[in-house]
Amino acid sequence: MKRRIIIVGGVAGGASAAARIRRLDADAQIVMFERGEHVSFSNCCLPYHLSGTVENSDSLVLMTPERFWKQYGIEVRVQSEVTAVHPGKKQVTVRNLETGESYTETYDKLILAPGANPIMPRSIAGIDREHVFSIRNVTDIKALKHYIDTRNVKKAAVIGGGFIGVETAENLKMAGLTVALVEGTEQIMLPFDYDMVQILHKEMLDSGVEMHLSSMLTEIREHSILIQCGDEIKEIEADAVVMAIGVSPETTLAREAGLAIGETGGILVNKNFQTSDPDIYAVGDAAESFNRLLGRPGRLALAGPAQRQARGAADHIYGSSGANRGFIGSSCIRIFGLNAACTGLNEKNAESAGISCDIAYVLAADKVGLMPGSSYMNFKLVFEVPTGRILGAQAIGKGNTDKRIDVIAAMITMGGTLADLKDLELCYSPVFGTARDVVNQAALVGQNLLDCRYRQVPVSEVRGLVESGAFIVDVREEQEFQAGHLKNAHNIPLSQLRQRMQEIPRDIPVYVHCRTGQRSYNAVCCLQGHGYQNLWNISGSFLGVSLYEYFNDRTKGREPVVTEYNFK
Amino acid sequence: MKRRIIIVGGVAGGASAAARIRRLDADAQIVMFERGEHVSFSNCCLPYHLSGTVENSDSLVLMTPERFWKQYGIEVRVQSEVTAVHPGKKQVTVRNLETGESYTETYDKLILAPGANPIMPRSIAGIDREHVFSIRNVTDIKALKHYIDTRNVKKAAVIGGGFIGVETAENLKMAGLTVALVEGTEQIMLPFDYDMVQILHKEMLDSGVEMHLSSMLTEIREHSILIQCGDEIKEIEADAVVMAIGVSPETTLAREAGLAIGETGGILVNKNFQTSDPDIYAVGDAAESFNRLLGRPGRLALAGPAQRQARGAADHIYGSSGANRGFIGSSCIRIFGLNAACTGLNEKNAESAGISCDIAYVLAADKVGLMPGSSYMNFKLVFEVPTGRILGAQAIGKGNTDKRIDVIAAMITMGGTLADLKDLELCYSPVFGTARDVVNQAALVGQNLLDCRYRQVPVSEVRGLVESGAFIVDVREEQEFQAGHLKNAHNIPLSQLRQRMQEIPRDIPVYVHCRTGQRSYNAVCCLQGHGYQNLWNISGSFLGVSLYEYFNDRTKGREPVVTEYNFK
Repeated sequence: MKRRIIIVGGVAGGASAAARIRRLDADAQIVMFERGEHVSFSNCCLPYHLSGTVENSDSLVLMTPERFWKQYGIEVRVQSEVTAVHPGKKQVTVRNLETGESYTETYDKLILAPGANPIMPRSIAGIDREHVFSIRNVTDIKALKHYIDTRNVKKAAVIGGGFIGVETAENLKMAGLTVALVEGTEQIMLPFDYDMVQILHKEMLDSGVEMHLSSMLTEIREHSILIQCGDEIKEIEADAVVMAIGVSPETTLAREAGLAIGETGGILVNKNFQTSDPDIYAVGDAAESFNRLLGRPGRLALAGPAQRQARGAADHIYGSSGANRGFIGSSCIRIFGLNAACTGLNEKNAESAGISCDIAYVLAADKVGLMPGSSYMNFKLVFEVPTGRILGAQAIGKGNTDKRIDVIAAMITMGGTLADLKDLELCYSPVFGTARDVVNQAALVGQNLLDCRYRQVPVSEVRGLVESGAFIVDVREEQEFQAGHLKNAHNIPLSQLRQRMQEIPRDIPVYVHCRTGQRSYNAVCCLQGHGYQNLWNISGSFLGVSLYEYFNDRTKGREPVVTEYNFK
Repeated sequence: MKRRIIIVGGVAGGASAAARIRRLDADAQIVMFERGEHVSFSNCCLPYHLSGTVENSDSLVLMTPERFWKQYGIEVRVQSEVTAVHPGKKQVTVRNLETGESYTETYDKLILAPGANPIMPRSIAGIDREHVFSIRNVTDIKALKHYIDTRNVKKAAVIGGGFIGVETAENLKMAGLTVALVEGTEQIMLPFDYDMVQILHKEMLDSGVEMHLSSMLTEIREHSILIQCGDEIKEIEADAVVMAIGVSPETTLAREAGLAIGETGGILVNKNFQTSDPDIYAVGDAAESFNRLLGRPGRLALAGPAQRQARGAADHIYGSSGANRGFIGSSCIRIFGLNAACTGLNEKNAESAGISCDIAYVLAADKVGLMPGSSYMNFKLVFEVPTGRILGAQAIGKGNTDKRIDVIAAMITMGGTLADLKDLELCYSPVFGTARDVVNQAALVGQNLLDCRYRQVPVSEVRGLVESGAFIVDVREEQEFQAGHLKNAHNIPLSQLRQRMQEIPRDIPVYVHCRTGQRSYNAVCCLQGHGYQNLWNISGSFLGVSLYEYFNDRTKGREPVVTEYNFK
């Protein structure tokens, strides 16, 4: 008896499940239904069609129904919407979207991989206008590109500052458009902490994207949008609007079939990706997953985890029950000239989950300074106190941030601590890195903090320190100090510190910094060795503070805390 | 009482130890002796001065004695050779190389970080000629560069195919010279297995370096060298010769002081980097270390481990005994257009150590195929059988091989298995990778092999299969087959496999391949599902075999096993 397996959804989760099932069972009848025009396309590449980085939209489609059939004997029916599941009868109802006809199909096992839908709030006036787009599939991106090209659109607004929104804004800007990005919260890219994301805000601004944070879209007009920021209503010209405020898991089918829904709103599954009906599996964006760092259910709309879940479901159908590790959440993005990546918990999430944690923030050379293309990388490591267990990291810079974050992802997955990470033996050549890599350095700083060797203040507190007249010591050399420094800082270069120590008071708090934190760490050690006790290292130092303050200074017309910005 | 700490050697190990000690002890008297002209220079960048990548040789020196004193209160004496250690008196004898005077200094603790010396066999006639160079320090590289520039050298020979030799050959070639590389064994870059290194041999050849493998230098003449390859003596024109056949640890000082030497020839140290005299420490290239994967003493001449050892020694002087993890051996190199990296054990070393292991060899896209700059990466994973514990990996390609190897280094360090690696959740964007990364794919292949789901033959056996008329099936599409294929292979595209299965015999061994191994894996699953049992997947597939065979075909005039080479 050949098994008959039906799969709903033909992108990351569905296509992976189908291919895996075929490898496990040469005989099974596999039928995959996809509501859209295409299966197995590269969702993640969609925005890159807008800039022409991916020139030919056809190339976004990786597999055709014909190839699925020829290569794998998998039957694919596109423009075919599964409108109902009947668990009792083990049947699905399918509607052919071209003909409008409906029919039923019988399954032995059913895999739901319908994905998630862009959220399009009906409450926003004008949301139905023809120049309002969302980006879910190849059809969508072709429509948007076609509209921009044929209507000669010069001004666009992107609503939502998550991955899709930012990538869309970047690619539209690269295509030469004037682009406004509207985000409801005070920051884009929520996986990053507020301190780190300021670097990305700066890059967006410097690259010419109009940034509207803490702003809600209220109306879409023919050639503009209205947004509300606090009490203020602004009108922004836009002849195309892209909605990217988030996605909601496609659970209607599951709900109507009486399948249980999890607390996070995704389809509830067990360790084997079975829903509350053991013959029905759910994988990908529509299913609830498990955040292994928080130890509780969570959702994650990413391709990699969807593929792993699909494999897990397929394997379980064929009798093997593999490990289900849930997710830690790893992601990365290029934003114009910067690469940003993160994994695990950020500080905000760890704290709101009540996890005892601390952070190490380093700005370290991404390769040996004298090699071409060397730059500093902003790296924030989140670790548990007092265990030193690594919880998460964020990296932003011109260099290979993805490399550093992948290493941290591996360490988190394996339960690594700061002690493990500081000694981690990575490959090194001056072409690629430094002998003591960014991640090693962050671990060393973290270990020093964990061991209570010194104390730090975060970049977010420096404005207050400057404004309150705290005693701040800048241990950079004089010419560096002259090129821009924290207002009111005292310049005592590390090279003069031993001679000029008496200039530093012992009875009040003293805050030490340099350019990136390396020299100030040595200064702090030196001062502590000479009996100073009320001593704080400014985490991130001058560069970190500058990057943190720049965007808000520029966009809010605030008085800078530095005499002059200098990001070198 | 201030402690007096003397350090012998002022590069990676010595300078790191000095800086760490200063942070731990603001009062200690720290004196660092360096025989050469410079301390704290970037050894690893030296070859890049030859091509002008690092234009200014002064920039190779990261810290001057003056800055060491001013910033850290560390006294540095260059051109000062420690000629004797007197453990009983806790004294060293120092010779000022400028004045020739000798004097003694007393220590509380002594750290030996003298490094390793380039091997210059006296037995080779002409080794003392003025155009024979080695590369150990800034003085050496300046002398070589100066010689090439002022004598207008157009032809150079580099002896030795290790990291320094290959980097030197690459940089001399980039500087426009005709370069011959002479290597005594059958391959360059010994950390790579013979199968993987063929890709590097090809790159060297394609980039115009004359490659002389299995060749011994026998004589250096005024404008040429003589090398012996088998019974043949060849003369190669060369107006500059760089000796890079290896380094030997500088142990004379330690030996003469009566300190114990380890079985591998480095200074014997305990877990805290103490020598047989507990007041004397040894770190870096001169000291013996511990290969944690082989569970036995070993040596490693790399900057990162030297820095970690230095920190460990400094910490122990101040009462803290940290973990000593030994080394796993991680390294990377750029060779013209390719990046190569490796970590842990290679197949050869694992096998010669009697470790039960197997390998997975994949050629996977380093980023999503439709993104600019996407290329395939050759990745070889070595794992223990039957545990699946990851032992090592090698990666070669145009993309970020260092990233993938760093992830493997983390997994090895943390005791990870194939099961851990296949599920590892790495950050993904099409700009940087694929949803299922190269390392995940290698782990999946490895797990399938470990689970005995199918069998493979290595690229090294394919020539024999072709020549013996084995039944080889190429499942690529016809036009791919036409552009170059294994001689005698039968082309049955995967898309026709189900219809044409009867063309494949069931009673003899059948060897299946495609371009990179993905389609052939599906073909193998399909055939196995239809009852085929004597079935083998060709590991590495067409591209892997082509890369493996190319160099020897070209240099030995051998008959290729492919109808036409095609590396696309």
